[in-house]
Amino acid sequence: MTILDRRKFLNTGLLAGAAAVCHSAHANTYKTDARVSPIGNSKWELETPALCVDLDKMERNIRMVQERLKGSGIGVRPHAKTHKCPAIADMQLKSGAIGICVAKLGEAEVMLENGIPDVLMTGVNLSPGKISWAMQLRKQFKGFIQAVDNPQNALDLNEAAKAAGIIADVVVDINVARRSGVLPGEPALKLAQLVDRLPNLRFRGILAYDGGAQHIKGFGKRQSDALQRMEPAVSSFELMKKSGLNLEIFSGGGTGTYNIMGEIPGFTDVQVGSYVFMDHQYLAIGSRTNEQWYDDFDASLTVLTTIVNDSYRNRLITDAGSKSLTLNQPPALVIGAPGFHYNAGSDEYGTITFEEMVKSYKTGDKLEVIVPHCDPVVNLYDVMYGIRGDKVESVIPILARGKSQ
Amino acid sequence: MTILDRRKFLNTGLLAGAAAVCHSAHANTYKTDARVSPIGNSKWELETPALCVDLDKMERNIRMVQERLKGSGIGVRPHAKTHKCPAIADMQLKSGAIGICVAKLGEAEVMLENGIPDVLMTGVNLSPGKISWAMQLRKQFKGFIQAVDNPQNALDLNEAAKAAGIIADVVVDINVARRSGVLPGEPALKLAQLVDRLPNLRFRGILAYDGGAQHIKGFGKRQSDALQRMEPAVSSFELMKKSGLNLEIFSGGGTGTYNIMGEIPGFTDVQVGSYVFMDHQYLAIGSRTNEQWYDDFDASLTVLTTIVNDSYRNRLITDAGSKSLTLNQPPALVIGAPGFHYNAGSDEYGTITFEEMVKSYKTGDKLEVIVPHCDPVVNLYDVMYGIRGDKVESVIPILARGKSQ
Repeated sequence: MTILDRRKFLNTGLLAGAAAVCHSAHANTYKTDARVSPIGNSKWELETPALCVDLDKMERNIRMVQERLKGSGIGVRPHAKTHKCPAIADMQLKSGAIGICVAKLGEAEVMLENGIPDVLMTGVNLSPGKISWAMQLRKQFKGFIQAVDNPQNALDLNEAAKAAGIIADVVVDINVARRSGVLPGEPALKLAQLVDRLPNLRFRGILAYDGGAQHIKGFGKRQSDALQRMEPAVSSFELMKKSGLNLEIFSGGGTGTYNIMGEIPGFTDVQVGSYVFMDHQYLAIGSRTNEQWYDDFDASLTVLTTIVNDSYRNRLITDAGSKSLTLNQPPALVIGAPGFHYNAGSDEYGTITFEEMVKSYKTGDKLEVIVPHCDPVVNLYDVMYGIRGDKVESVIPILARGKSQ
Repeated sequence: MTILDRRKFLNTGLLAGAAAVCHSAHANTYKTDARVSPIGNSKWELETPALCVDLDKMERNIRMVQERLKGSGIGVRPHAKTHKCPAIADMQLKSGAIGICVAKLGEAEVMLENGIPDVLMTGVNLSPGKISWAMQLRKQFKGFIQAVDNPQNALDLNEAAKAAGIIADVVVDINVARRSGVLPGEPALKLAQLVDRLPNLRFRGILAYDGGAQHIKGFGKRQSDALQRMEPAVSSFELMKKSGLNLEIFSGGGTGTYNIMGEIPGFTDVQVGSYVFMDHQYLAIGSRTNEQWYDDFDASLTVLTTIVNDSYRNRLITDAGSKSLTLNQPPALVIGAPGFHYNAGSDEYGTITFEEMVKSYKTGDKLEVIVPHCDPVVNLYDVMYGIRGDKVESVIPILARGKSQ
């Protein structure tokens, strides 16, 4: 591995005001065909909008989460709903992850069929069609674990597993943030016991993901709130433990709480997703050592965009609007231009407003922005470009893009 | 055509409180495979989230815009950035549209290569790669018209057209809403004259689309504001006319102003996009005859979603979050449940809050929602299901999805 050799790149931080603009050449020759491979070219030659990942930074993120959790007893089970790329899941597994998570069945299928052996699906499958499809996947891929959060669904899964001639691996999802999950306490215990009792299901443990705690600003508050919010799930875990259930999985936590969850007895692994890319939302929450900026991981994911109009005062128009960046807040962050305010409110166009321009940007120039929120932005693109230094090293297909079922 | 025969469906309005819920069967057999064709099945059997278009309503919308503009001298040049489907563009052309618009070069390519002969691209191409790609498209497809909004770009297009051995058709885009476009007046005139003079470009006319006027609430205000905002573009048109330029195209307007633009002398066609589907944003602007609700066109586009959790008080969780519905406002509108407030703020989950439930919805039930804003929602899906009555009649590939370049 040459990962350590690449650390020198990391000191040239994305936000350090480095020249992040490429003036268009207005070349008189037009031999470039947008559809030829860009590999080996400068990233600034990519057609825009283009989704890019800085490979040095991403590799460091993938390595750092393992290093930071070493010795804590907490494993890493990255959530692939963020990147939707089997190629990146593979990198995570090779770096020590114990498996991956996915949110949707379509994502599970893409990952399993592309060589990712251990896949835990955190969402539930309710329809007969999805349940049947899930069981066919489980029949083919032994490392597929499914979630359940209500008794009827457990019965339905058992029937389907029986029909498929398998014993399916199941975890019980416990409510923490009032989205998915069975209510904690007795309902959770009873569901776990039901799953354990059903002949064609194998109870493997519990999920308790807190979607509401990840973005709490300030590490101290995030830590105390996250632990407090987990208490009902922890009590449920204790109840199950007392009743003798198999609890080999107690999974939850995310990029905002990966270094907090280890304080919970019995907790086994964190479902970190965004850490691999980071985004403006996560950068703004602050870390244990830096209350202003979350610097445990580097912002590796960016979108390249071109200025398409410079004729308005204190205003630049780009080719990346909501179809390229989503409407998430805080907005896209223009690298090297701290006074630029990016608005992706229009479908096709971005609007940058500013009071003073540090350097002269004009029509045809390219800009690079950190995305507002990585997951839904990735879901807009068919490929992301793997960038090393300023060169395009790879084109990574986002094979599970759009797999919302 | 059997379109008229289908009008009976239209009276059963989407929002009339019709039963828009399908209780899950909890069937004991699991023979459904989510990947077999759903054609002929009830739409309620579709796996979710699923993007659906009511074919009767869409066909009526496509027909009605032509009927409403009949005799006005205004043509219809629908914007295909909304639907991104060559199949729907084809329906629009067969119903009398004079061509289609696209925003991006990737969309133009998909449309042209899939049998749509007349394509006007409203965005500009700036990079050498895109310009070369555009000229190759123009060489192959005579009906491809490109936009330009700055002099350097006109020179670049001319060079590339010369290199490709063609004369390329070009329109000048004039700023109305401070997004794209050359400044009106002298700059616009000079640019038009430059294009007209360049040997490898053919000046066809002007674009003046007002993205800011489409959603002004109340027809009266929208009408007066839209016409006032167009004045500089109209003056530019007059200047060009006096200078003897070819102005066979004076295109602009959208779903919000399609029946206003005809008041402008010389105006040739409206770039209506959303009319084909409608969405909550457009429904809320009011029409000429109904200040509360825009009823010129019917809401044909919906997303089917499943309730995945009903364990929380006054709260239902669905499987359609921001990756299925975007974060646009006003939010998704649950059909048949006026007291439901839909929040797609989470990537994977939708949250419905309510004070009173009209009927008992529970986990596994399906709901149908009108989307917040049609364009970016369509851009999330690979296919939309064509629905007739309650049956799936077709699966329409969204071939230009993700073509943001």
